[in-house]
Amino acid sequence: MDTIVTFTTDFGLADAYVAAMKGVVLGINPRARLVDISHSVKPQNISQAAFVLSTACGFFPRRTIHVVVVDPGVGTERRAIVLRTPEADFVAPDNGVLTYVLQPYASGKAADGLQSLQGAEAYTITDSRFWRSPVSPTFHGRDIFAPVAARLSLGTPPSEFGDPVSSLAVLPMPRPRRMSDGTLVGHILHIDNFGNLITSVQRGDLPGEAGDITVEIGGEKIRGLSATYGAADGLLALVGSSDRLEISLKNGDAGAFLKVNIGDEIKIRAGH
Amino acid sequence: MDTIVTFTTDFGLADAYVAAMKGVVLGINPRARLVDISHSVKPQNISQAAFVLSTACGFFPRRTIHVVVVDPGVGTERRAIVLRTPEADFVAPDNGVLTYVLQPYASGKAADGLQSLQGAEAYTITDSRFWRSPVSPTFHGRDIFAPVAARLSLGTPPSEFGDPVSSLAVLPMPRPRRMSDGTLVGHILHIDNFGNLITSVQRGDLPGEAGDITVEIGGEKIRGLSATYGAADGLLALVGSSDRLEISLKNGDAGAFLKVNIGDEIKIRAGH
Amino acid sequence: MDTIVTFTTDFGLADAYVAAMKGVVLGINPRARLVDISHSVKPQNISQAAFVLSTACGFFPRRTIHVVVVDPGVGTERRAIVLRTPEADFVAPDNGVLTYVLQPYASGKAADGLQSLQGAEAYTITDSRFWRSPVSPTFHGRDIFAPVAARLSLGTPPSEFGDPVSSLAVLPMPRPRRMSDGTLVGHILHIDNFGNLITSVQRGDLPGEAGDITVEIGGEKIRGLSATYGAADGLLALVGSSDRLEISLKNGDAGAFLKVNIGDEIKIRAGH
Repeated sequence: MDTIVTFTTDFGLADAYVAAMKGVVLGINPRARLVDISHSVKPQNISQAAFVLSTACGFFPRRTIHVVVVDPGVGTERRAIVLRTPEADFVAPDNGVLTYVLQPYASGKAADGLQSLQGAEAYTITDSRFWRSPVSPTFHGRDIFAPVAARLSLGTPPSEFGDPVSSLAVLPMPRPRRMSDGTLVGHILHIDNFGNLITSVQRGDLPGEAGDITVEIGGEKIRGLSATYGAADGLLALVGSSDRLEISLKNGDAGAFLKVNIGDEIKIRAGH
Repeated sequence: MDTIVTFTTDFGLADAYVAAMKGVVLGINPRARLVDISHSVKPQNISQAAFVLSTACGFFPRRTIHVVVVDPGVGTERRAIVLRTPEADFVAPDNGVLTYVLQPYASGKAADGLQSLQGAEAYTITDSRFWRSPVSPTFHGRDIFAPVAARLSLGTPPSEFGDPVSSLAVLPMPRPRRMSDGTLVGHILHIDNFGNLITSVQRGDLPGEAGDITVEIGGEKIRGLSATYGAADGLLALVGSSDRLEISLKNGDAGAFLKVNIGDEIKIRAGH
Repeated sequence: MDTIVTFTTDFGLADAYVAAMKGVVLGINPRARLVDISHSVKPQNISQAAFVLSTACGFFPRRTIHVVVVDPGVGTERRAIVLRTPEADFVAPDNGVLTYVLQPYASGKAADGLQSLQGAEAYTITDSRFWRSPVSPTFHGRDIFAPVAARLSLGTPPSEFGDPVSSLAVLPMPRPRRMSDGTLVGHILHIDNFGNLITSVQRGDLPGEAGDITVEIGGEKIRGLSATYGAADGLLALVGSSDRLEISLKNGDAGAFLKVNIGDEIKIRAGH
């Protein structure tokens, strides 16, 4: 079956680790359609992987299978899981890489870094019948995740791979907080290839109309939101393609210009 | 239909922007064959994108669809277009990224940066029925170009997407100029991954036989053309795989060695 | 036929050289399944290409076709060859890029850098009927290797492309050597994206039980082997996913930490 299988890893593009995974998938399902999401997640950066995955997976057809291998705990006690949502399947270590993906299925508050699920099912990957043998303790991507994804793509139900689990690991996701004077304080989630700063502030969080807010970041003030990257000279703020507040520098790199980093604060208030 | 759809962007490989476009295409045409040309065009570098595209698109089968998203004017007044040539289809912003592709279809002189077409047809992309909804004003690649390319790959005629246009934006393309003493002056168009310098001088421009010309670049003189990168020690000049004069350093990086950049001059004269 | 064709090159990802090869393959066999192994081999680094290829090709289905274009001698007297093993086909310059792949088929000692074959057949690529025309002397990847791989993928027997050859070029492969005091001296073969050091020491070479050996590298001593990258804090040694001794730094970059390079020595002895 021509199911799409995507890959998100921190393997980089110089080594052949990604290719080895693809070879394993094609050996089991020669008709799988393989698509790279990113292999340039910084080594062991689970939160970056979670964000990057979330900005692409929603644009794939239903029943796409997303394999995520950013897995600093490979071979240790961390669980490997299959998550089935009404939209897609995910094969990943249970270390928080699915944090954003799980949001629509969150049931109650996350406790101890675990989030209960509603409307989605998850299973541990424990049945070694579906794995390559022997399994390298340092490369579950090739020996466990890839063959499990390939079997899923051929129609094996997720419940075949192991026992159901009712909650999965999530990363802390600091939401923007509103100060007593009405100022909203968010932070930088991601800096993209263009140097655009993508923040934790979503469209619905904005404390006023687009033309009427002031953004402070890295010691600079930006008045009003623009519609497009090309709309104003210099620094501009806009709601970007992931429905989040972004800071951009026309034909330039806002991150380098402002000397800011992931995690730095951004403040938004109504009025100029 | 198994039509090939290629992608040329400045999105880089760390973010998931390319993957989002591919997901959109596969959601509309699950059988499209997706091939990357390059995603490492420097941000907003339209002329680099135009050159890189031109070195690959001619080697794809007829009726391949090439999507080009190097689009600093996204969301502003710049037009988005579909170009149909006898060879292939192109989906791109009308900002000059198709400059080299348009050369065989140029009719009369380009004026005001616009080139009239002969033997190829172009249409603006204005009919929003074919787009994702809502359209992000910052990511037409995902919300307009990708779905239009997918529809093209399923056989929708280009005229469905909008009105015909008779001329398209082109970049100035300085041709080598011949000095009164017969010296030909060209410039560096591109420096590749090996440090080879690819110039604006085409095979037919050369002012003499291969063995009988002298090339000056970066303060160095090279006598005669070589046939291959391995033919001589040190710096060498040859007609490369894109039928252009290239300067190469055997087992080295000519660009770094000569400390030259894109746009720098190269002089060629007959004799030693 | 949906045969898989993989690509390993030093072309990088910024230029369109890889895409040109893929376009040529798809023009001949529109159903070929194209998979990248790596395009980030360092320019002209034949030994890196040989290693990277060897870590992936064994994981692809039987009869996959692997195209390798790391070819500093392109256009010179070096031979181009097709190698058919019981597992797979390889299309490559005869310059040592297949060194690891050839190991199971080595017959007798390599002499003068040539290895006789047993259980595999090889042919020179000399019949220009199968090539693009004209052939660029600087880009055999596009004009010779790609069309030959595409014809192979359609079932053309390797013997059609040229004459049989009985031995192929191999690189010197220094095996770990055992000193008179029992110490094993190997060296670093490869440093991966995580900074893990992959060595010439294979599992079977180890001079003692996992818990009972001491590794010396870059002035540091590591006692005992770990099972996983996460098993111990700081530096650790383990047998990695390619069945070779690796040195890793938990959540860090062992290569940068130890300031070592490819080719540097590693010593292993029994006992603490």
